[in-house]
Amino acid sequence: MKPVYNFCAGPAMLPVAVMKKAQQEFVNWQNHGMSIMEFSHRDKHFVDVAKTAEKNLRLLMNIPDNYKVLFCHGGGRGQFSAVPLNLIGLTGKADYLITGSWSDSAISEAQKYGEVNVVARSYKKNGLTGIAPRDSWNLSDDASYFHYCPNETVDGIEMPNEPQVSVPLVADLSSNILSKVIDVSKYGLIYAGAQKNIGPSGLSIVIVRDDLIGHALDVTPSIFDYQKMSDHDSMYNTPPTFAWYLAGEVFKWLLDQGGVAAIEAKNKIKSDLLYNFIDNSDYYANKVEPQYRSRMNVTFQLQDEVANSDFLAQAEAQGLMALKGHRSVGGMRASIYNAMPVEGVQSLIDFMAKFAARAV
Amino acid sequence: MKPVYNFCAGPAMLPVAVMKKAQQEFVNWQNHGMSIMEFSHRDKHFVDVAKTAEKNLRLLMNIPDNYKVLFCHGGGRGQFSAVPLNLIGLTGKADYLITGSWSDSAISEAQKYGEVNVVARSYKKNGLTGIAPRDSWNLSDDASYFHYCPNETVDGIEMPNEPQVSVPLVADLSSNILSKVIDVSKYGLIYAGAQKNIGPSGLSIVIVRDDLIGHALDVTPSIFDYQKMSDHDSMYNTPPTFAWYLAGEVFKWLLDQGGVAAIEAKNKIKSDLLYNFIDNSDYYANKVEPQYRSRMNVTFQLQDEVANSDFLAQAEAQGLMALKGHRSVGGMRASIYNAMPVEGVQSLIDFMAKFAARAV
Repeated sequence: MKPVYNFCAGPAMLPVAVMKKAQQEFVNWQNHGMSIMEFSHRDKHFVDVAKTAEKNLRLLMNIPDNYKVLFCHGGGRGQFSAVPLNLIGLTGKADYLITGSWSDSAISEAQKYGEVNVVARSYKKNGLTGIAPRDSWNLSDDASYFHYCPNETVDGIEMPNEPQVSVPLVADLSSNILSKVIDVSKYGLIYAGAQKNIGPSGLSIVIVRDDLIGHALDVTPSIFDYQKMSDHDSMYNTPPTFAWYLAGEVFKWLLDQGGVAAIEAKNKIKSDLLYNFIDNSDYYANKVEPQYRSRMNVTFQLQDEVANSDFLAQAEAQGLMALKGHRSVGGMRASIYNAMPVEGVQSLIDFMAKFAARAV
Repeated sequence: MKPVYNFCAGPAMLPVAVMKKAQQEFVNWQNHGMSIMEFSHRDKHFVDVAKTAEKNLRLLMNIPDNYKVLFCHGGGRGQFSAVPLNLIGLTGKADYLITGSWSDSAISEAQKYGEVNVVARSYKKNGLTGIAPRDSWNLSDDASYFHYCPNETVDGIEMPNEPQVSVPLVADLSSNILSKVIDVSKYGLIYAGAQKNIGPSGLSIVIVRDDLIGHALDVTPSIFDYQKMSDHDSMYNTPPTFAWYLAGEVFKWLLDQGGVAAIEAKNKIKSDLLYNFIDNSDYYANKVEPQYRSRMNVTFQLQDEVANSDFLAQAEAQGLMALKGHRSVGGMRASIYNAMPVEGVQSLIDFMAKFAARAV
């Protein structure tokens, strides 16, 4: 069978080796005659799986000891609520930078629990989308935290560096966690829905500095209370155990790949290949300021959008799946997370070249 | 390999046929070259999986058209918060019956959002645990709803019938949903964490009457807002797609078994076998009032608790797993949900008989 390359923005492709191993042991994990999803979360075997996953994530991201790692229910949008529920009570106010539509959704949740100051919005200039420059930001001096989403999947936009701010930096890394080396100590809190670079949907990971735990508002549901989750090693309630196990397998795979620095180099190769092809084509165009182009979600427009449905149908026939852009932007989007091999990107480019040659 | 029977209270054993099918199509679902967990939740293939699951659950439980079925993040404990967040605002107050420790946990969450009136507590008399009789309940006349948990896994206690109350009946059916025929129209809201009779952990199912939707408090996180979840067919955010798929496979399996009435008959056979054996044994004892014995979680004590660790070790060597009782009760617990075959219960009884014969 011809390989299928899945460019879905999320739930996304997972590493082939991980999926094959998980299939092999699906009904009989480590010869116990049971699936790992049939073990109690309190069983020593599952606890070992859980602890190993955390240990390997700490290794991969070089997470300092004064940060807790939580494996939570509820996905990224759950954390849109959990972050303000746990942190905004510090001063009653938070700063939010808007880099795209996910930022807007995060703000809608935060406004339920305190005052939100919008620092700046992403802009469109000469048809290109960009992120408001640091010197234009309207920062407050009494924010509990500064929230931003450095990679936005809809437009395919990414901030290359952490912003410098004087309050705890909170980042929604759902779509670019583990894709490049970051210095966790620069952040107060990092969170990510799992379904792009970590594992299946239904799990979110929170990495939070000790001193930011313990400030939850009274109305915080227990499963969102970082103190309770931390005190119970993320097992205050039954966690999504199979997703946790699979995330752990992805972490092992990343270590096998050489860790985050090695995967970052591959991600650069993949995105450079695709952006270079687009830039050298008269038929395709990317509409993001070059310095803010995402290495994870590469958006592009065809010369004539009438050809979009043909493009998608022919791509799918070639095993190139889920390339349709977000409905609010149109065009195409190739999400090339860690699990996408260079061969997948090369196949996409080959197809795009042939499609353009036939079209013009 | 000798069959393994997993008596874990949850995450629990899933039907063998379901697990084998899920394994077979794990990396290549319906010949698409991708896992079902790698599809976008918006993809027509996944949407079809999701809708079929709901349709089959409606069929199995005969759910009236004026009830919405929601597939949610957050497990049962998430719903401990979501229920009061969505309903307690109706009058500011709710009635809670305590049938065991899960009821207590539900109350702790509800008290964050309104006034809780404890209707009655389960009792212990002559060493047997029972549920407070209906005529002893202290009901309020202005409760938004009446909450109870008809099957409590810790003690192994179950209410045989729905209570008659004048306000919407809210039931935590986490541990006995789909185990017997119920009349959904008697309830205002039913919820259940998936990890016992439905699928893997990380999913909860809510069945809610239309008129109870739309009353969420302002502080309700979006992923817990029944109105938002209902308006977006449970896809306001990315749902736990693999858990949803697997739940759908369990529903198909239940239909293949003849539906809920047929599985109820099997559950009666299984629990009768085990309770009869215990009652006829001098070595084992169950400590629940006979009319409140759970058909899902059968608890029993050995004559001498010093033998507990021997019992567990020898059982495990026979492939009889996870029989240890909850730490707050001690002794043993055999959780025999829908997926447990009669052969598993018979194997357990055979082992228990041999163990007792050696011990006395």
